[in-house]
Amino acid sequence: MPTVHVRLSQRVPETLAPELMKRLFFAASSIEEFQLFTEDGSVVGVELTLNSADSAGVAEKIDRVVAEQVLTQRPLAPRSVWESPVVRSEFTDAFPELLAQDTVVVSGEGQVGFAEPLISLFGYLDRRLRAIALSLEGAREYQYPTLLPTSVLDRFGYFGSFPQFPMFVTRLHNDIDVYADFVERYREEQRVPDDLFAHCSNTDYCLPPTMCYHSFHQYQGRELAGGSVITARGKSFRYESRYHTSLERLWDFTIREIVFMGTPEFAAECRNSVMRQTFALMEELELAGGCEVANDHFFANADTAGKILSQRMMELKFEPLLPVAADRSIAVGSFNLHGHFFGESFDIKGPDGGPVASGCVGFGLERLGHAFLSQHGSDPARWPTAVAQEIG
Amino acid sequence: MPTVHVRLSQRVPETLAPELMKRLFFAASSIEEFQLFTEDGSVVGVELTLNSADSAGVAEKIDRVVAEQVLTQRPLAPRSVWESPVVRSEFTDAFPELLAQDTVVVSGEGQVGFAEPLISLFGYLDRRLRAIALSLEGAREYQYPTLLPTSVLDRFGYFGSFPQFPMFVTRLHNDIDVYADFVERYREEQRVPDDLFAHCSNTDYCLPPTMCYHSFHQYQGRELAGGSVITARGKSFRYESRYHTSLERLWDFTIREIVFMGTPEFAAECRNSVMRQTFALMEELELAGGCEVANDHFFANADTAGKILSQRMMELKFEPLLPVAADRSIAVGSFNLHGHFFGESFDIKGPDGGPVASGCVGFGLERLGHAFLSQHGSDPARWPTAVAQEIG
Repeated sequence: MPTVHVRLSQRVPETLAPELMKRLFFAASSIEEFQLFTEDGSVVGVELTLNSADSAGVAEKIDRVVAEQVLTQRPLAPRSVWESPVVRSEFTDAFPELLAQDTVVVSGEGQVGFAEPLISLFGYLDRRLRAIALSLEGAREYQYPTLLPTSVLDRFGYFGSFPQFPMFVTRLHNDIDVYADFVERYREEQRVPDDLFAHCSNTDYCLPPTMCYHSFHQYQGRELAGGSVITARGKSFRYESRYHTSLERLWDFTIREIVFMGTPEFAAECRNSVMRQTFALMEELELAGGCEVANDHFFANADTAGKILSQRMMELKFEPLLPVAADRSIAVGSFNLHGHFFGESFDIKGPDGGPVASGCVGFGLERLGHAFLSQHGSDPARWPTAVAQEIG
Repeated sequence: MPTVHVRLSQRVPETLAPELMKRLFFAASSIEEFQLFTEDGSVVGVELTLNSADSAGVAEKIDRVVAEQVLTQRPLAPRSVWESPVVRSEFTDAFPELLAQDTVVVSGEGQVGFAEPLISLFGYLDRRLRAIALSLEGAREYQYPTLLPTSVLDRFGYFGSFPQFPMFVTRLHNDIDVYADFVERYREEQRVPDDLFAHCSNTDYCLPPTMCYHSFHQYQGRELAGGSVITARGKSFRYESRYHTSLERLWDFTIREIVFMGTPEFAAECRNSVMRQTFALMEELELAGGCEVANDHFFANADTAGKILSQRMMELKFEPLLPVAADRSIAVGSFNLHGHFFGESFDIKGPDGGPVASGCVGFGLERLGHAFLSQHGSDPARWPTAVAQEIG
């Protein structure tokens, strides 16, 4: 595959390099690999490995990403709200060993299966987080289906803010002639034909990019008498392009979710309670890490920079970040307040008759497990006693 | 919506009426409801509620279903291999009550969420079935991702036999220009545009219609030294058209799966052991029911009738059927032998160097739970003591 060096039309300050790196694979599907080049504290070029010959077209797309999605951002100083007393200088990349033992199995892009002791470890972490959820007043647990109506995400304009993540579900159009035509084509070609979508007509369902949308959908059009808390564990899906790696950034992953709805004070208290209890759990699990103000990865348009800035200024989103290597941490969840956004979008009324305020907390169980393995290794005998006892 | 009476071109013997009913909603998406009309022991017509005016086109499609998929079948006398000593004459339709309590939540077609005590009940049933799986020699548990590569189903021609069931997963084509065009359209229309697929290009993944395909994919190209047993719990998906109802025929459901690979004798022994232990479990759970020879619901083509006949004659598939009403039972799982079919399709070699023989057992947890609720009611205080104690 050709390697080409592309010079950026505008220089990118190194402080914004992570923002550029996060977006490059979404710029064009022909980018197989990339490496940034810097001069005098600025990114000035990108070396690309391409699966197509159109390097000029790709260069133009990258310039647009830089202009619209990177340089529009205002870097803010990190603000930390928790720092684990645990300090760690050694990390394990357990993945190759787990692969060799068939303890993890890669079945597709960003799709990983796993066996014991990981099933028990992830189950243990989930039980602890579930207990935090159920400590909140009136909490109720649900198990939701996987499919989510597309109309649920349409209600609050999800696809306009995050067109890069969602996965849509379709099927052959329900008609004996369509089935028969398709089967004939399929038998001729011995594979699903490239024009599959010509036989499909349904776009009613998609896969949930996160779990809390199931809860807002469930409560749509209702009036809540007081504060409500819902917790759920389930599968979520995000197209992560070529960013998938080990258990860190799966396309197909498991979230333990906690949603709270009520007055703004109730939502804030719930979030703060979950944060306090989570930090205590991390310390009990002897995990190094911290928690910082964060923002969502909106797809750029005219108001993106403003959205990100106000989200950060109002501290609506915090992320617990756990180191997985000497120079790298990953977010294992997020603690969010939504104001009245979802109450308005889903017509959910609160105790005062107006749209309910809400917040949610989600933990990526595979990511949390991955950080745990990176810090404690894959041998259960070396895990903190409380964990080892429970899953022994 | 118009109601029309369609006279069939060929009479269908009443013994084949269930086969016709199973297929009618797949004949044309315009059929909203139907009712069969019989004369002298034969189905002679269908009353249809249609969401379109093309009743002649629909009549023609139904005639084709009758000719190709129904009259080609040879009804065989049922053969029972187990009959529960538990006899039951009263049944509960717990669903309306569970809905009223928010214990179940309908979120889409064939998509149902649930709260306690159902989460614990389904979890208990799963633990008992998992223990049966782990009683088999060398059994190993896996948790698989949800997404399944389309190529896995292509390997053994799934889409040619069951084009009506699968759901495909796609996403916007990964390119900043596609995202930007889509977002512009989306903002104009305030909803996902009808021509969504014009912005999508990926057909690499689908949703698994059952769990065992993950296991065959995992072992693809390997050589097994001895008998292997894998068990997994996970989400499976089948488009059930308008047949979805309560927890009985979900589009999106949970399977506890057991796959065994080895010599044909090993596969048969595993299947028989799981069947014996399952029947004992059903009796311990005080469930009425039986188990019969069954067949897969192949989409009709020239060789369908032969496939079904040979599957039934060789007794490759048994289904445990539990009554949910005085006049109706549902299959809550299946016990299958595959011969060398998957060993050949996935190039998995057995201890003798040839393609491995395989079999699998799958339980639909929501269906099993639904049968349990229909027979025992929704009040945990009235459930068999062993269950009530475990989840109290």
